[in-house]
Amino acid sequence: MRRLALTVLAASLASPAFAVEGMWQPAQLPAIADQLRAQGLGLDPKQLTDLTGPTMGAIVSLGFCTASFVSPEGLVVTNHHCAYGAIQYNSTAERNLIDEGFLARTTAEELPGDPNLRVYVTEEIRDVTKEILRGVRDDMDGLSRYEAVDRAEKALVAKCEKPGNLRCDVYTFHGGASYQLIRQREIKDVRLVYAPADAIGKFGGDIDNWMWPRHTGDFAFLRAYVGKDGKSATYSKDNVPFKPKHWLPVNGKGVEAGDFVMVTGYPGRTNRYRLADEMAAAIDWQYPNLIATFTSVLGIIDAGGRRDPEVAVKYASAVAGFNNYLKNSNGQLEGLAKADAVRHKKDGEAALEAWLASSGKDPSLVADIAALRKLIATQAAVRDRDYLLGFLSRTSLYQSAYLASRLSLERAKPVADRESGFEPRDEVRIEGNLKQMERRSDPAVDAQVFAYVLKRYVRLDPAQRVAGFDAWLGTGEVDDATIDAKVAALYAGSRLNTTDARLAAFKADAKTLAASDDSALVLMRGLMPDLLALEKQRKARMGEEMRLRPRFMRAMIAYNDAQGRAVYPDANSSLRVSFGQVQGLKEDGKELFPFTSAEGIVAKTTGVDPFETPKEAYDAIVRKDYGTWASPKLGSLPVNFLADLDITGGNSGSPTLDAQGRLVGLAFDGVWDSVSADWVFNPKLTRSIQVDVRYMLWVMDKVDGAGNLLREMRVAD
Amino acid sequence: MRRLALTVLAASLASPAFAVEGMWQPAQLPAIADQLRAQGLGLDPKQLTDLTGPTMGAIVSLGFCTASFVSPEGLVVTNHHCAYGAIQYNSTAERNLIDEGFLARTTAEELPGDPNLRVYVTEEIRDVTKEILRGVRDDMDGLSRYEAVDRAEKALVAKCEKPGNLRCDVYTFHGGASYQLIRQREIKDVRLVYAPADAIGKFGGDIDNWMWPRHTGDFAFLRAYVGKDGKSATYSKDNVPFKPKHWLPVNGKGVEAGDFVMVTGYPGRTNRYRLADEMAAAIDWQYPNLIATFTSVLGIIDAGGRRDPEVAVKYASAVAGFNNYLKNSNGQLEGLAKADAVRHKKDGEAALEAWLASSGKDPSLVADIAALRKLIATQAAVRDRDYLLGFLSRTSLYQSAYLASRLSLERAKPVADRESGFEPRDEVRIEGNLKQMERRSDPAVDAQVFAYVLKRYVRLDPAQRVAGFDAWLGTGEVDDATIDAKVAALYAGSRLNTTDARLAAFKADAKTLAASDDSALVLMRGLMPDLLALEKQRKARMGEEMRLRPRFMRAMIAYNDAQGRAVYPDANSSLRVSFGQVQGLKEDGKELFPFTSAEGIVAKTTGVDPFETPKEAYDAIVRKDYGTWASPKLGSLPVNFLADLDITGGNSGSPTLDAQGRLVGLAFDGVWDSVSADWVFNPKLTRSIQVDVRYMLWVMDKVDGAGNLLREMRVAD
Repeated sequence: MRRLALTVLAASLASPAFAVEGMWQPAQLPAIADQLRAQGLGLDPKQLTDLTGPTMGAIVSLGFCTASFVSPEGLVVTNHHCAYGAIQYNSTAERNLIDEGFLARTTAEELPGDPNLRVYVTEEIRDVTKEILRGVRDDMDGLSRYEAVDRAEKALVAKCEKPGNLRCDVYTFHGGASYQLIRQREIKDVRLVYAPADAIGKFGGDIDNWMWPRHTGDFAFLRAYVGKDGKSATYSKDNVPFKPKHWLPVNGKGVEAGDFVMVTGYPGRTNRYRLADEMAAAIDWQYPNLIATFTSVLGIIDAGGRRDPEVAVKYASAVAGFNNYLKNSNGQLEGLAKADAVRHKKDGEAALEAWLASSGKDPSLVADIAALRKLIATQAAVRDRDYLLGFLSRTSLYQSAYLASRLSLERAKPVADRESGFEPRDEVRIEGNLKQMERRSDPAVDAQVFAYVLKRYVRLDPAQRVAGFDAWLGTGEVDDATIDAKVAALYAGSRLNTTDARLAAFKADAKTLAASDDSALVLMRGLMPDLLALEKQRKARMGEEMRLRPRFMRAMIAYNDAQGRAVYPDANSSLRVSFGQVQGLKEDGKELFPFTSAEGIVAKTTGVDPFETPKEAYDAIVRKDYGTWASPKLGSLPVNFLADLDITGGNSGSPTLDAQGRLVGLAFDGVWDSVSADWVFNPKLTRSIQVDVRYMLWVMDKVDGAGNLLREMRVAD
Repeated sequence: MRRLALTVLAASLASPAFAVEGMWQPAQLPAIADQLRAQGLGLDPKQLTDLTGPTMGAIVSLGFCTASFVSPEGLVVTNHHCAYGAIQYNSTAERNLIDEGFLARTTAEELPGDPNLRVYVTEEIRDVTKEILRGVRDDMDGLSRYEAVDRAEKALVAKCEKPGNLRCDVYTFHGGASYQLIRQREIKDVRLVYAPADAIGKFGGDIDNWMWPRHTGDFAFLRAYVGKDGKSATYSKDNVPFKPKHWLPVNGKGVEAGDFVMVTGYPGRTNRYRLADEMAAAIDWQYPNLIATFTSVLGIIDAGGRRDPEVAVKYASAVAGFNNYLKNSNGQLEGLAKADAVRHKKDGEAALEAWLASSGKDPSLVADIAALRKLIATQAAVRDRDYLLGFLSRTSLYQSAYLASRLSLERAKPVADRESGFEPRDEVRIEGNLKQMERRSDPAVDAQVFAYVLKRYVRLDPAQRVAGFDAWLGTGEVDDATIDAKVAALYAGSRLNTTDARLAAFKADAKTLAASDDSALVLMRGLMPDLLALEKQRKARMGEEMRLRPRFMRAMIAYNDAQGRAVYPDANSSLRVSFGQVQGLKEDGKELFPFTSAEGIVAKTTGVDPFETPKEAYDAIVRKDYGTWASPKLGSLPVNFLADLDITGGNSGSPTLDAQGRLVGLAFDGVWDSVSADWVFNPKLTRSIQVDVRYMLWVMDKVDGAGNLLREMRVAD
């Protein structure tokens, strides 16, 4: 399988137009070096392949966001929304840092971040394809293949993490064509250094989310701390700032329209190489199903909140999440419809297969692509069941019964054999989840969601039914009233809606649980054999997919290779680089300009959230007191800018760099037409939104008086 | 009260900036004549006050849309979406006119519209304030006032409609400051003449709804027919085209950016003069409540549709409606937040009151404004109950029981005393509703919606409870399970979920209904005394409002008058004129250009609904075969254009006229930021969207070969 990586590296004649699209692995960059130079990259692309060298050595992950070092003293810059937890954690009724903002004038004033905040510094990316696939034989069935890969991954991770204070993960590329082991130093003492007021950092709020024009100062600063011995350590007064080997220089002059820019970061997930059938299923089933389900559950939660305001508080964050998914799903559907994406996919697959047929390639590739389609259809046949069972785990009762029962089974196994997610290192997280349920769920709402799922479940075709559920529901026609009664009895007969009982079950062994008369545990006893059997079936399908999808990708890569085009892998939360240009967007009847300016903030400001502006900022803009931070070309202070950079969720906080690798902004969002870029990158419509470094520096200089940080970053004396 | 109208007419020094905002009554135009001339109106404003003269005599209503005569042979132009019912009515499985479009090459080929399609030609607008208020005395309580006005209105309408084939309505202006009786000729034979294919008429569909850039050919042609004697008649082969006295000339050269334009039509409803408290209630209660309720009901319907696909079909139109309301409500909330509208309202009210205090005006005005605020608070105290009772009438069971029971009571009264909506002329409509329920509702879904409303009802504070409901629900804690059981019993015990039983109840007299053991009729018997009492309370509040709101408006008008500003009344479905200018919109970071062009259609076309384009149109655009219809200034064929015209729902199909009163387009939508213009007109953000007459003529000429109509409209020989 290593050849695949080589094939990628060999593709050097890519067309310049292709470079805009692509979240490239650093190791791929020499392969598209000519193109990058032609686009304007001033660095040697080779430099970007050294993850511990200049530029790349400064890029870090927060786990859910990207960030970067900007000083030799471990100063880290990221988005305001990525530092939100740390700001919130330090806020009190008396001192609301979200509203007021926060600035530490000395390191002594810096505040500890929330306990889960981490900075991960990538130390090594190693191709482990050979090691992962060592135990895999061509004639293996799906389940054996899955298990062999799973075993190999766990062993590599365990060995890698052994020295401590490290996070190691195996990342899968091209659906299993190659695997990389990524080792990251885990810095556990991360402090809040500076955050502008919410009125700047979240200006425009949800109304402006995904929108342009945009005027959001979405930036904040953290600092990484380690023990005096230089090793990772949890928070302690005695810890000292981490001294990174590399940090990003800051270009206080920024970039202008047409300039080269690049973004480095950890994009989460894209679906660019999914088959047409999978895209069609997303359009016909996945998003509509999600919209319908979330709409129903929002209705249930709303009714619960009317009954009891405390319920509304408990579900506030879930409701925000559901609404965000709804908006996103509608954006996906709109974008895919506008692009007629499925037809293009189909045409692309037809062209690929025609090429395979004509070029005398390995005929088994065509057969394997057909087999992949068949496998996808097999998965589709059970997707409703799998979706409903998955959704059921969102109810606290089902989830606690399942976690406790499953843990009790896994604990009985040797550590190396325990299921992913139920390993010893997962137990703290599981316990935390069980503790938090009290603050996040209400038994009555929980029961109604449970009943909602069951009402859909009983309408599945017989092939998708689960014996344990059917036995529990009883024979004969199961109407809605029966389900309501069943669920009411289930909740009445279980103590798992209290934290104490949940934690007791969490600690209990299999024997104790087997003897319990708790109705939820009894139900789970009946279900567990089915769930384990379904898990095996799912693993078998995934194992089969691990064989077939790399075959499809091998064909794709060869096809593109023949046309001189390099192929980047779908995003998988691993480090990537995207290249592009500062530019707006013009279409018939409309133009989005590449920059917004400070005057636009004043125009939008109403004085009411989310369109408030701190008085100092407002007055300074009215005075046009832009100091040295204005753009002579724009004739104003730039606030946000657009670029055709290929990014997605996880890229939040990513540094935007100029041709010399200097910081010129932070990526934080995309325009509405970019929502569906997870599936299709459209260079005409896809635009990333960045906060301009000049606006950041101006806010620090003129609004918040953060001269200490400007000096630390060497943008002021 | 007549002085008020005079006050309006006397306001002649209005500032030019103000003219953009305003849906003016034709009679007001001489008062703003200077301003209109300064803006570019080439006609004498006085001409526009003659409703049966040139220009205004050509404007007609379809009841829900606006349209206009464009030939001496009764040819009518309106939006494609306004003619949709007529197109759908004539479509069959073999001949889908929605998809294919339709063109009658001779009058003989024209197709009868759907039976409810009407053309209303305004014949007279008469101020009847004096007659309406003749029986009203200052010392009357609210209920007496309401009833006096209601009686006077009914008497005027009955007298006016006596000759037949007329529709007469009394319209209330400024909340009751003045009343106008509008007499319209009702043309009952309206035929479909021409509609482009859906791919043109609805290009962009729901995705482009409220959006710009836009490329929708939203136009269609109808023809009004009358009997050979010239009188209105229902459809007959022997009918002849109606010969209007006036029709609009067509300006085939269209308008360009910066040109004067005006729109005449029937805008439905705006809230521009609502008090700050009312606007705040809309933001804090009305829209969020609507969003929550509709979300819950969509969830119920979705679950029903999963159980039975036929249920999904039954509710398809309701679901589309709910989703449209959801989108609209979100747009209202966004727009009102962006504009910080409540604060501006409050500031405006404070300025008004300061002026009243300082100018030595009638001090009772200030007291009455305070009383109006108090009345609004009173209404707010029972809004949840009133909303829930109103929503309950959306269930078929409750609605049929109520309609039948109420009708039986009203039928026992003398005709003149019967409640509005239950008069003899309403019975056909009610019967039609009861018949249609079968196709629009499902008993199981209906029951769940009923239960949903009740579950909210039982959480109302005691003051909002309804004795009849509480008696039915029984004493003690009423939990969700009790309600479910109650509702299940209610639906099991009623036959009103069948059409036969509904129609039988509709025909039954009070005695028969009183003897019925049908559970829904029994429930309604218990409720009716409460409902009638609540109705009386509501009428009393409305009567009180009829006294107070005109007082507030009198103050407003005097205040504006003092500043030389005329005040137009809120939209109330009566004929209005708006003035403006062809213009796009520029803000920091974005520009919307005033025109879209044919090339934009090709750019958007994917071949899949809603972005399909008929081959002839597509090819002609690629060839740039624009004939004489292109704009030399734009260098292309204009498709849609923006203007700062003040319009709202009901204006759909309204002719857009140039300075000389010639047709240059049809209004059909607004941009997203215009959604909240129902509350606040923002000249910087509010833009109407028109289909350009040149695009209409090009489609007729080059795509559909409608030369016969071009000749009839004198735009071709």
